[in-house]
Amino acid sequence: MQSEEAIKSANTGFYRAIESGVMDHMEEVWCHTENARCVHPGWDLIVGWSRIREAWERIFASEQKMRISPTDVYVYYSGDFAWVSCIENITVFQETNFDTVQAVATNLFVQRDGKWLMLHHHASPIPTMALDTESDTIQ
Amino acid sequence: MQSEEAIKSANTGFYRAIESGVMDHMEEVWCHTENARCVHPGWDLIVGWSRIREAWERIFASEQKMRISPTDVYVYYSGDFAWVSCIENITVFQETNFDTVQAVATNLFVQRDGKWLMLHHHASPIPTMALDTESDTIQ
Repeated sequence: MQSEEAIKSANTGFYRAIESGVMDHMEEVWCHTENARCVHPGWDLIVGWSRIREAWERIFASEQKMRISPTDVYVYYSGDFAWVSCIENITVFQETNFDTVQAVATNLFVQRDGKWLMLHHHASPIPTMALDTESDTIQ
Repeated sequence: MQSEEAIKSANTGFYRAIESGVMDHMEEVWCHTENARCVHPGWDLIVGWSRIREAWERIFASEQKMRISPTDVYVYYSGDFAWVSCIENITVFQETNFDTVQAVATNLFVQRDGKWLMLHHHASPIPTMALDTESDTIQ
């Protein structure tokens, strides 16, 4: 598999791990190092795999069902270090209805033993009322 | 100059360009390509240097004085591609007072002709009331 396809596949794997709500799947996609970093939408920076893992455990413990799929996926890489830029389309299911939101994500991956692993995830909510949707957005 | 120091210097140069309010300085630090991307705090994704440039022009046109300095600077690089993670400490001056806020930033740089240029900037506000300051934050 070409690098770009392998990186896109790693990125898709990350979002499937979120949807699964299963920690084993989330562990598989991350780089388990102290320089791993994570920013969930509206959260502060989390540093180090052990704290990132704890945060995912709390998110999964809430048992809130969600669908999350990346669109507008752009990949750039140099050697064993890759950047994926994408839009996250998130649907969160409540008891009787659901909410749909979008976030913009910067995901970084490193290749270790032939596998692309997530080193950094930074997601921030896209405002419902964008400041200037005419000239600035990806549309 | 070693790569890590050169990358930190490029990162510092970006924040000095913001403080200067001068477009020439901002142009110097960026990679002028269509794959450049930018997310200002609370904004949508901006794709391509020409649109990124327009957004900076509007920000600078507001003539709002600010101080912005990076702390907790972490650098990772592989070959000619680098990631800087940092906290932005922003002071915005009003007529009679000032506001201080923090943002978390993911900055990506590429080395071209021996110079590190910004390819991507993603900043998002750190909530004043962090969801869990005890276990998740950088402190």
